[in-house]
Amino acid sequence: MVGGGVVGWAIAWRCAARGLTVTVHDPASGSGASTVAAGMLAPVAEAYFGETALTGLLVESAARWPAFAAELTAASGVDLGYRTEGTLIVGRTGDDLAEVRRLGAYQRELGLPITALRPSGLRDREPALAPRVRGGAFAPGDHQVDPRRLLPALRAAAERAGAVLVDAPVGRLDEVVAPAVVVAAGCGTAALTGLPVRPVKGQILRLRAPGGGPPGFRHVVRGYVDGEQVYVVPRADGEVVVGATVEERTDPAVTAGAVLRLLRAAVDLLPELAEYDLVETTAGFRPGTPDNAPVVGALPGRPGVLVASGHHRHGIVLTPVTADLVTDLVTTGTPDAMLAPFTPDRFGPPTRPATGR
Amino acid sequence: MVGGGVVGWAIAWRCAARGLTVTVHDPASGSGASTVAAGMLAPVAEAYFGETALTGLLVESAARWPAFAAELTAASGVDLGYRTEGTLIVGRTGDDLAEVRRLGAYQRELGLPITALRPSGLRDREPALAPRVRGGAFAPGDHQVDPRRLLPALRAAAERAGAVLVDAPVGRLDEVVAPAVVVAAGCGTAALTGLPVRPVKGQILRLRAPGGGPPGFRHVVRGYVDGEQVYVVPRADGEVVVGATVEERTDPAVTAGAVLRLLRAAVDLLPELAEYDLVETTAGFRPGTPDNAPVVGALPGRPGVLVASGHHRHGIVLTPVTADLVTDLVTTGTPDAMLAPFTPDRFGPPTRPATGR
Repeated sequence: MVGGGVVGWAIAWRCAARGLTVTVHDPASGSGASTVAAGMLAPVAEAYFGETALTGLLVESAARWPAFAAELTAASGVDLGYRTEGTLIVGRTGDDLAEVRRLGAYQRELGLPITALRPSGLRDREPALAPRVRGGAFAPGDHQVDPRRLLPALRAAAERAGAVLVDAPVGRLDEVVAPAVVVAAGCGTAALTGLPVRPVKGQILRLRAPGGGPPGFRHVVRGYVDGEQVYVVPRADGEVVVGATVEERTDPAVTAGAVLRLLRAAVDLLPELAEYDLVETTAGFRPGTPDNAPVVGALPGRPGVLVASGHHRHGIVLTPVTADLVTDLVTTGTPDAMLAPFTPDRFGPPTRPATGR
Repeated sequence: MVGGGVVGWAIAWRCAARGLTVTVHDPASGSGASTVAAGMLAPVAEAYFGETALTGLLVESAARWPAFAAELTAASGVDLGYRTEGTLIVGRTGDDLAEVRRLGAYQRELGLPITALRPSGLRDREPALAPRVRGGAFAPGDHQVDPRRLLPALRAAAERAGAVLVDAPVGRLDEVVAPAVVVAAGCGTAALTGLPVRPVKGQILRLRAPGGGPPGFRHVVRGYVDGEQVYVVPRADGEVVVGATVEERTDPAVTAGAVLRLLRAAVDLLPELAEYDLVETTAGFRPGTPDNAPVVGALPGRPGVLVASGHHRHGIVLTPVTADLVTDLVTTGTPDAMLAPFTPDRFGPPTRPATGR
């Protein structure tokens, strides 16, 4: 296993539990996208036009989450911060609400569970919402988990099952000698494999409810606010995640403009956030692919090398299905039909030799 | 000397340079208001109604700054980041501009150097200002210095002149044995002296111009923006300070609402700031007094104990005059007439014994 993020550790856990000998190579496990992510498990709110194959995989993986969370909690002894209150999708202005409704109609067409709500219904569910919010919808199946609990939980479960971490960098794939090598290296995947996985910058904030208590709201809130998109994720321990920009940039700067836009939109939706502590501002990089979908399967021209990367904005929700299907592929040698839309060969041959930099 | 902030080290420098033996007691020199401050030397823009005595002292100390800066730079070898481009005071809306003009008229009445500017004149001076800024004024004598350079410069000059730092806390004044004890302990002054010096919370941001260059504007900009006050201080090294809230609170939290208000007002004045890195968010505490003016002079009932504290929002600009007048007082025993409005006894007897906690 090359890469010790959530996807890498989840595959390591599943493989080790099946009795395979597993080594995870990562010089800085947990330093990538995994611990920057907000942890929304949102197959419905993330179901966008033209991404039906991806939506199918999101729905499948989200359906596996409850059992996955229970099994992982038992195996690791770690509370994952898994919450099932669901997600409110709201619009602040009339234009914002029109966008929420347009997307909601599409999501309903796909048969996904989403219910339109009037302002009064929204506020019954979440009294902390600003009075000016015009309306929205409820996605009861869009849950959340805390990635900063998930990563150590996966690592603990994998290590208890026998997986071993080697905290040194892997410069070339032929440095790793094993019957099967899985590359789950996030943004580092491109350099190792030649696949078109690029970093997509995201800026994200972490707030904390004052006084040490939980936030004054329980649902994940996704908002369209004067044309800006923002999400607000409340944790039971008082943390509130506000995110996130999507930028085609590779600089690691946290910018004043991004923080301003995120805070403005979040406070416009949930005014009490103005009184919350701002405890962290972070820029991270999601591993993105040309079609926004992950790349999971055999690496062309490299027998024994599998890839599980390119999860972009969906790494946390896609962790269970990725781990299950890659583990099946490692043990049986045959890819599940669900993986057909996500094979590495869909982008044509890798642009650089997969043996070196 | 009890207290190793800018006021303490400046007095220590001046006293040591006169041949006195000086010990500075501070367990964490530089951890107080000194290194949170923006460093505006703004006697004009800070001349508010009803504070004429304070305004006089601000003007006097600002007049001493050029020579003080030159002398300190020579004595310490440290570049202070002292800049003399002056300050623009601007209003974004008609209401904001009315406030700028009302205060400007008062400042002109006092004979202070301030010139009204039309929008075209403002933008000639500072093209980076937002087109929507309605108008303002120019205060050519309101300069700036970098407090994070000033503090080490003062300490270096003081230590070269023979002053010695003892980095242990002082719990009671009688732990310090010296012919003259000067309490320049900022917010710690109340516990040591019983004087009514209270912490006034300020939240402040530090941005940095992208690419490592200097900011795209040269003047300090003080703005009234939809009723909010904000200042923006550009440094030659690329840092931009945006401040500051004034809050009667003692919690050290950086809040989402404060960061939002500061960023929104700053970006409304200088749109390019949206592209700047947000590198620091800080909450600090100014030592405030009941009349907002410093408390400088002999502590009632405690022979040999002097106080130089309560500088509130004006510690950096008041450093030269405070150091000069306290040094005179220590060496001659007679207070300068300028100190008459600022004596510790103006608040009545200290409320707690000055000998203990």
